Amino acid sequence: MNSTVTVCRKEHFNAAHRLHNPELSAEENQRLFGKCNYPNYHGHNYDLIVAVTGEIDPKTGFVIDTKYLADLIKELILDQMDHRNLNLDVPGLSGKIPTTEILAMHIYDLLRAAINSNLDLKITLYETERNFVVYPA
Amino acid sequence: MNSTVTVCRKEHFNAAHRLHNPELSAEENQRLFGKCNYPNYHGHNYDLIVAVTGEIDPKTGFVIDTKYLADLIKELILDQMDHRNLNLDVPGLSGKIPTTEILAMHIYDLLRAAINSNLDLKITLYETERNFVVYPA
Amino acid sequence: MNSTVTVCRKEHFNAAHRLHNPELSAEENQRLFGKCNYPNYHGHNYDLIVAVTGEIDPKTGFVIDTKYLADLIKELILDQMDHRNLNLDVPGLSGKIPTTEILAMHIYDLLRAAINSNLDLKITLYETERNFVVYPA
Amino acid sequence: MNSTVTVCRKEHFNAAHRLHNPELSAEENQRLFGKCNYPNYHGHNYDLIVAVTGEIDPKTGFVIDTKYLADLIKELILDQMDHRNLNLDVPGLSGKIPTTEILAMHIYDLLRAAINSNLDLKITLYETERNFVVYPA
Amino acid sequence: MNSTVTVCRKEHFNAAHRLHNPELSAEENQRLFGKCNYPNYHGHNYDLIVAVTGEIDPKTGFVIDTKYLADLIKELILDQMDHRNLNLDVPGLSGKIPTTEILAMHIYDLLRAAINSNLDLKITLYETERNFVVYPA
Amino acid sequence: MNSTVTVCRKEHFNAAHRLHNPELSAEENQRLFGKCNYPNYHGHNYDLIVAVTGEIDPKTGFVIDTKYLADLIKELILDQMDHRNLNLDVPGLSGKIPTTEILAMHIYDLLRAAINSNLDLKITLYETERNFVVYPA
Repeated sequence: MNSTVTVCRKEHFNAAHRLHNPELSAEENQRLFGKCNYPNYHGHNYDLIVAVTGEIDPKTGFVIDTKYLADLIKELILDQMDHRNLNLDVPGLSGKIPTTEILAMHIYDLLRAAINSNLDLKITLYETERNFVVYPA
Repeated sequence: MNSTVTVCRKEHFNAAHRLHNPELSAEENQRLFGKCNYPNYHGHNYDLIVAVTGEIDPKTGFVIDTKYLADLIKELILDQMDHRNLNLDVPGLSGKIPTTEILAMHIYDLLRAAINSNLDLKITLYETERNFVVYPA
Repeated sequence: MNSTVTVCRKEHFNAAHRLHNPELSAEENQRLFGKCNYPNYHGHNYDLIVAVTGEIDPKTGFVIDTKYLADLIKELILDQMDHRNLNLDVPGLSGKIPTTEILAMHIYDLLRAAINSNLDLKITLYETERNFVVYPA
Repeated sequence: MNSTVTVCRKEHFNAAHRLHNPELSAEENQRLFGKCNYPNYHGHNYDLIVAVTGEIDPKTGFVIDTKYLADLIKELILDQMDHRNLNLDVPGLSGKIPTTEILAMHIYDLLRAAINSNLDLKITLYETERNFVVYPA
Repeated sequence: MNSTVTVCRKEHFNAAHRLHNPELSAEENQRLFGKCNYPNYHGHNYDLIVAVTGEIDPKTGFVIDTKYLADLIKELILDQMDHRNLNLDVPGLSGKIPTTEILAMHIYDLLRAAINSNLDLKITLYETERNFVVYPA
Repeated sequence: MNSTVTVCRKEHFNAAHRLHNPELSAEENQRLFGKCNYPNYHGHNYDLIVAVTGEIDPKTGFVIDTKYLADLIKELILDQMDHRNLNLDVPGLSGKIPTTEILAMHIYDLLRAAINSNLDLKITLYETERNFVVYPA
């Protein structure tokens, strides 16, 4: 019998950012990013869903303990990004444009290195209720 | 490195409809559709999620600009359907039964023709919080 | 010790309507109501919160049994309005403009007549997530 | 033209449970399950989304009638689990650890036996807004 | 200038309970409480909103620090009730019927004793998304 | 018959801020505001509910046209604050600590000056889903 299940944990953090490509002119940045390019930053309440897929452990009935998963997300993601400026304060994003796409890929990389390789991993990241991304697609 | 991401944009519109198959008797329509067949229409606040999957553009960090996507949804979908009667006012649905399934397929077709073919497209349409569909499956 | 509590029950119904004042010209209706005046109706998923305030009954620990309250809302409101056209199908709204304000007042009147007069009553009615009213103020 | 659509129905039920593996010591149970192992049970408002995928029936425009699907969920799932203790009152869970994973698999099995085999089935089960699972993965 | 503001903090806890009045017969309990009287308990994800009203402190711009308020709710409410059985594990509810009304009054009393008397206090408690109470009314 | 109704409109904006009182030392600011004092700003998706109370106009069935109200909020609030830094970009907040309390009062003042004085006004401002304020209390 198939006992592969996806387990999801939702967390959230609040951060500032702006979208700006330093290789482009101010006019081009404004044209590409509009309000998201304003110089003094804006911010979001990000909602993050981490989905882990694998076999159920018969000893616990868990694929992964969501308490453990929550602690991992706190240590690797929230403690680095919560109440921070994504352009200035997050080393792994330095020199990158912190779009929701880029941010989701970065969060995936940080968690992927820490989660057992026999478990699949997927990130859903909400920048707002109306704009969100899934990685890997 | 895999940079294929799914980007989602949520929009909403309010419309009236009724479920009725003109090739069937009134009794059969009533049996099949129940309250949804009442003659004077009812309506819904539809929530629409458009998911676009593709590679990140390194210039912008976007798969697709959600502002552009929102404008496209407005022009092709909302301006045709918002505050309209799906049975009477939407040419592409003429002669069809406007179930959530049929409506999602129609929305998909309208957007598919306008979105670059190297991007995948998926529609999630909520008729209510409790009834929703995904197309393609 | 004060044992006066407000008990709230949330229900929902789906209905069609349009905003139109028959005493005004077509142009004036269009100017006043915009898209809400479109002739073939549109519709909403209405969320209705009925708040009843009174003393706790020591026998049950209830101000009012929410199961009883839900049944009352179903009989007096949902069975008359769910999957109906508010302009055409609801006798008490005949000749009225079915704005959220007018609809909330009508729902209040129907429930007020059925709920014990030693209980206070308040209606919150959501036309959409973003537009809602409270009556009495 | 592809007319395969996924239709989703959301229901909910309220139940008590505790996480406990009778083959392990009290200390090991406490270590594995923490607060979820407290002896006198706790509980949740479970949200259940049943997703059914198949071809649209041209007679109705439905993949499956959501009223029929809701009735089936009520009969097979809610009537057995709503306002019940998952450890004590649900025969199919007897001797199992009622984690969200195990519960979702059990709900899947009950519905799978009742839904036409040409329709695919997927279960999403929310234990809380922040912890949920999908089965099959 | 009026600087009195209401500050609200939302928390949640998961608990088991059943509704049962030991002074009444089994039949009367069943008649009064229906499914909520089932013997082996059921449970809920309770959402708790604590509203504190007072003057803004010009030094901080706060009426009350929501971090302090969250810690207070954790210590006085969540640590006593989260993952607990409201009938068996909460001393202050012993011998009481743990309806949402009674539970909200108990939570109010616990917080009222700890919050400065120049601040007003109001409790909103959601048993489910559809059933909730406010105390004081 | 009482025709006084409260009409509510929900809008949202995204902004950066930090909590800092320039009259206090760095240590005192850190002690008072914790993560909210981080130097490079963080941000939020603010949800704003504007509640207007008054008599129904019999010509329209409206207390206030929510389209007009939405336009007013856009002009006076969103165009000044959306995608902006509340510490640096909003003249009326200059020199103030942009807590949710202070921000709600400022939004109130801006709207109060523009809304007819025979209408009552109340602001609910969500900084996050879990922290929100109401002004006037």
